[in-house]
Amino acid sequence: MKHTEISTLGEFGLIKRLTENFPIKNNSTEKGIGDDAAVLDYSNKKTLITSDLLLEGIHFDLTYVPLRHLGYKAVIVNLSDIYAMNGQPKQIIVSIGVSKRFSVENLEEIYSGIRLACNIYGIDLIGGDTSASLTGLTISITCIGEGQYGQIVYRNGAKENDLICVSGELGSAYMGLQLLEREKIVFETSGAIQPDFQGKDYILQRQLKPEARADIIDNLKKHNILPTAMMDISDGLSSELFHICTQSNVGCRIFEDKIPIGEQAAIMAEEMNFNIITAVLNGGEDYELLFTTSLSDYEKLIQIDDIGIIGHITSPEKGLALVGRQGEEIKLKAQGWNSLQ
Amino acid sequence: MKHTEISTLGEFGLIKRLTENFPIKNNSTEKGIGDDAAVLDYSNKKTLITSDLLLEGIHFDLTYVPLRHLGYKAVIVNLSDIYAMNGQPKQIIVSIGVSKRFSVENLEEIYSGIRLACNIYGIDLIGGDTSASLTGLTISITCIGEGQYGQIVYRNGAKENDLICVSGELGSAYMGLQLLEREKIVFETSGAIQPDFQGKDYILQRQLKPEARADIIDNLKKHNILPTAMMDISDGLSSELFHICTQSNVGCRIFEDKIPIGEQAAIMAEEMNFNIITAVLNGGEDYELLFTTSLSDYEKLIQIDDIGIIGHITSPEKGLALVGRQGEEIKLKAQGWNSLQ
Repeated sequence: MKHTEISTLGEFGLIKRLTENFPIKNNSTEKGIGDDAAVLDYSNKKTLITSDLLLEGIHFDLTYVPLRHLGYKAVIVNLSDIYAMNGQPKQIIVSIGVSKRFSVENLEEIYSGIRLACNIYGIDLIGGDTSASLTGLTISITCIGEGQYGQIVYRNGAKENDLICVSGELGSAYMGLQLLEREKIVFETSGAIQPDFQGKDYILQRQLKPEARADIIDNLKKHNILPTAMMDISDGLSSELFHICTQSNVGCRIFEDKIPIGEQAAIMAEEMNFNIITAVLNGGEDYELLFTTSLSDYEKLIQIDDIGIIGHITSPEKGLALVGRQGEEIKLKAQGWNSLQ
Repeated sequence: MKHTEISTLGEFGLIKRLTENFPIKNNSTEKGIGDDAAVLDYSNKKTLITSDLLLEGIHFDLTYVPLRHLGYKAVIVNLSDIYAMNGQPKQIIVSIGVSKRFSVENLEEIYSGIRLACNIYGIDLIGGDTSASLTGLTISITCIGEGQYGQIVYRNGAKENDLICVSGELGSAYMGLQLLEREKIVFETSGAIQPDFQGKDYILQRQLKPEARADIIDNLKKHNILPTAMMDISDGLSSELFHICTQSNVGCRIFEDKIPIGEQAAIMAEEMNFNIITAVLNGGEDYELLFTTSLSDYEKLIQIDDIGIIGHITSPEKGLALVGRQGEEIKLKAQGWNSLQ
C-alpha cells in the first residue's frame, strides 16, 4: 500500500481529504464540518447524545483488527447507544489522534469504514478533530440522534412482572475475540503458519464488524411496543441487567435455556473449554438490545423475528439470578468488561 | 498527596466519585449521566456542537501543567468554540483515558478544574467515558450549546469594507508557553534552581488558565451588534484570518499598530529575542474572539470595552496583508499551530 506521510498534507488538507464524499443526508444537519461548531436543528424533538473513546491496545489490537473494520465498529458502538434509547442516530463527530507510523492511506482506510457505516445507517459526519499522537491510535466518536417526545426509553422503567427480552444472539463477539487472541499467540510463536479461521467467519464478523439493531427499533415501533427499559449489551448481559435492575429498583430471573446463543460461539467455546454462559454473561460486545416490556405486549412481541424472551422482572428483594437447566438459581454478578481493572 | 489506585474503585465507582457535585443547571438538560445517551431539549433553538481531543505530549505537558488547570482549560477551549458561533454553551461530555501512573486523586484534580469551569460558565456535565490507556493521558470533550434562530454567526459572512475586530489582547498565551518551555529546560539541566516566574504571572495565567469570552458575546448582543463572521483565535491570528477570508471569499488588511498586545508578552518577547508580531500571528491559544462587523456598527462598537478594531475586509483580489508601522504591506501566511507537522 502507498504510504503518504501525514505531514505532507497538513491538518486542513488531511481533514479535507478524509471527509470528502460524506454527503449530508439529514434535515437536522444544518452545518457540518468547517466552522467552530456544527449547527443542528432538533426543534420539536429531543436530542440524544453519546460519546465513546477507543484507545489502541485497550479497546482494539491492530495486530488483527483491519483499520476499515475499526472505523466501522467505532461508529456502530455509538449508534447502538442511540438506538438503545429508542432513538434514531443522525450525526457523528469523529476525533482521531495518530502517531507517526500511520500514513494518510491508513487514515483513509479508517474513514472508509466510517463512511460505510454512515451510508448504511444514514448518518452525517459533521465534524471532528485530527491530531498527532505521541503513542498509539485514539478514536473518539460522539453521536447525536433524535428522540420523539414520550418515546425515549431509559434504563430505569422496568416494573415487576415485565418480560426481559434480547435481540439476536449472544456470546459470538466474545468468542470471536477469544479466537483472534488465540490465533495471535499461535501466529507469533509458530511463525509461518496461517491463522486457522475456517468455519469461524460468523464469530469473527460479530467481533470485527458488528451491526447496531436499527431493525429491532423499527419493528418494535411497527408493532406498537414501547419497552419499559432498554440498553445495549456492550459489557455483557449480567452487567447490563444490573444497570437496569439497579436503576429500576427491581430484581430479575433469566433462564439459561432461553438465552439465545450462537451456534459457532457454542462450538468455539467447547473447543476452547470455555463456559459459553460465562461468555454471554460477562463477555460483552454483542451490541444487541436488552429490553423489558409489559407482560401485555407478549402477543405482539412473539410476532417479531429475532427477539427472545429470556426471563422476567421481579421485586427487588428477590435479587438477580440465572435459573439453570435443572431449576437451580445462580446469583448474577455485576462483572462486565472493565478496562480499568 | 494520597494515591488511590484507580482499579480499587472500578469504572462505575470511579465515574460516580468523579461526577458527584455536578448539579444540573440548564433547562435543556433532561437526562445527564447514567444511561446509554444523554437527553437534551433544544426545541425552538439550534443545537451547536463541537469536540476537541487533547493528548498528552502533544497538547499539554504535565511537567508544568497542573492537572486542575488542565481540566479547566480543556473545558474552556470547547466553550470558546460555541461562543464563537454567537451561541451559549450548555453541556459537556468528558471522556478520559488514563494510564496506570494516574491515581484517583489525580483524576479528581482534573475534575475539580472541570467543575470550576462548569460552575463559572453555567455548564452541565452530562456524560462521558473513563477508560484505561496504555500510554498517556487523553481527554476528549464534546460541548453542546444553543443558538438562536437567525443569530448564529459563521465564518463565511464577512463582506468588503467590514471592520475586523478582536477582543482582549493577543500573544500572551504563546509567550507564556515559551516561558514555561524555557524554564523547563533550565530546570532540567540545572537541577536545584527554582523556575523564575517573577512578574510573569499574567502570561502564565493566559497559557495555563485561559478564559472564554462569554462577556464579549453578551456585550455585542446588548449593543445590538450581530457580527458578519466570527471565530475564536486558537491557532494564531493569521490562520484564523485565512479561515474567515477564504470562507467569505474576501481579502483583508490588518494594521500592526492596531493589534492589541499584552504588555508582559511584549517584555517577554524582547527578553527572548522573539518577534512579538510573529507570536501573535502564528502562536495561538489566545481564545479571544476574531470577528467582522458592518462598518455601520462602528459607533456601537467603540462603546464596548476590550474590543479593538484592527483592520478591514477588502475585495478578494487584494489578498491578506499586515500593514506595518511604516505603511509597508506584509503578506499573511496561513501558518498556525499544527500538531501534524
